[in-house]
Amino acid sequence: FIFRKTAAGYNMTNLFVGSEGTLGIITKATIKLYGQPESTISAVCHFPSVKAAVDTTVQTLQCGIPMARIEFLDEVQMMACNKFSHLDYQESPTLFLEFHGSESGVEEQAKDVAEIAEYNEGSGFQWAKEPEVRNKLWKARHDAYYACIALRPGCKGKMTDVCVPISLLPQVLTETKEDLDRSFIPGPIVGHVGDGNFHTVLVFDPDNPKEVEEVKGLTDRMAMRALEMHGTCTGEHGIGLGKRHFLEKEIGAVGVQVMKELKAALDPKGIMNPGKIFMD
Amino acid sequence: FIFRKTAAGYNMTNLFVGSEGTLGIITKATIKLYGQPESTISAVCHFPSVKAAVDTTVQTLQCGIPMARIEFLDEVQMMACNKFSHLDYQESPTLFLEFHGSESGVEEQAKDVAEIAEYNEGSGFQWAKEPEVRNKLWKARHDAYYACIALRPGCKGKMTDVCVPISLLPQVLTETKEDLDRSFIPGPIVGHVGDGNFHTVLVFDPDNPKEVEEVKGLTDRMAMRALEMHGTCTGEHGIGLGKRHFLEKEIGAVGVQVMKELKAALDPKGIMNPGKIFMD
Repeated sequence: FIFRKTAAGYNMTNLFVGSEGTLGIITKATIKLYGQPESTISAVCHFPSVKAAVDTTVQTLQCGIPMARIEFLDEVQMMACNKFSHLDYQESPTLFLEFHGSESGVEEQAKDVAEIAEYNEGSGFQWAKEPEVRNKLWKARHDAYYACIALRPGCKGKMTDVCVPISLLPQVLTETKEDLDRSFIPGPIVGHVGDGNFHTVLVFDPDNPKEVEEVKGLTDRMAMRALEMHGTCTGEHGIGLGKRHFLEKEIGAVGVQVMKELKAALDPKGIMNPGKIFMD
Repeated sequence: FIFRKTAAGYNMTNLFVGSEGTLGIITKATIKLYGQPESTISAVCHFPSVKAAVDTTVQTLQCGIPMARIEFLDEVQMMACNKFSHLDYQESPTLFLEFHGSESGVEEQAKDVAEIAEYNEGSGFQWAKEPEVRNKLWKARHDAYYACIALRPGCKGKMTDVCVPISLLPQVLTETKEDLDRSFIPGPIVGHVGDGNFHTVLVFDPDNPKEVEEVKGLTDRMAMRALEMHGTCTGEHGIGLGKRHFLEKEIGAVGVQVMKELKAALDPKGIMNPGKIFMD
């Protein structure tokens, strides 16, 4: 028996979600289930540039087309996926899409997005309805992390993410890719571009101090770039240990102080995941 | 420049939203805008019983039909609206609906819901696309509050709401209506039934102690009924002063204590909207 909304007191659920275990321990969670859509279409489309892929995403959202999924993979990630999953996708900035709805609804949506993609010089728009073909289309995206790691067998993957206002996403993505291209560490990019959010997996040898240093530099510069462009140093992953030094830059000294006071109120002994989120 | 998501520290936005001014003052808010849908259809349909209207709502949501609005008005509210807005709607439990999407999408959705309504013995399903006709259809719902007040000129309206698991909504609605029918205070019901949430406006004379007492009894019994059926004593309106005595019943003594500690951390002097939410 679960009710859908309440205004009784403070929103404790959303305070605890994302608190990284620093306020207490979640011992029980109730999950909301959604029905299977009547019909699903998956699609893939390649673009000549990052900007063309992001523009397609923005225009799609502006048209109010109800996207179920819209995922961006850069040409480095596509190369990694082709290699790992034995596929032969074009190795250029690519969008993976999914539409949910009624039979005629999803076809209409897919056609509308194909038109927007074409306008932005997208090419090779493929779409599929049958589950087996859909799974084949999405395989590259689903195996993306393993494909990254496989670029350097024996190495580890350091995942990091940022989120910026969507109008600044092409600029942040382009500058981040330039930084990654200059580095000896491979860093394929996967993005939830509809949210202005993207991730990279930096594949490195954790026993090599030079590589560890390089990964820290790339991660820090990516976070700083996002903060300078009115974004957040982490869209999904959280602050943890690695981004503690950015929190004050992002939310200000007063913001950090308020969060610390909340932490002190709920965890006066400081025993809940100590050291995370805050510098001291 | 606004980014869509962040995982940097605690979710302060959702802690402050709904805190009823007890944690601090919101001095600035950024509002998310949504585009106008390509096409809109509004519809109205009458039902022989509360249960038939709720069942139609539940089945519509279970089919994954993307409803923009789905609002329930009981026969008392329909009578009040007819009188106030000079309309001639059937005075029975009624759903007001709205569909957003593409031209063909909204027609498909409206037809699907009409079929579900018919299965539940709904009648007089009317729908409209043109803005003027749509506005006319929705007029009853939009004027609902004023229609209630107009039932007793010179009186005030006390609004109250609860929310329950949707499977228990027909039972709570039926029992609440029985309670209201027994009372000398008029209490039309309007519900966001897709959420299991409904409101009543109790129209009473605030200078008459007997009426004030009756309103308190009706409000308290409605809240208790919701709590006994695994719901919340308030879905949208908040605790304020009038429902402080239900908070512990709803979230437990420990829950209240945790909320009080949050309040003390952010408002150590107790100057932020004192007396609200908590009993002491």
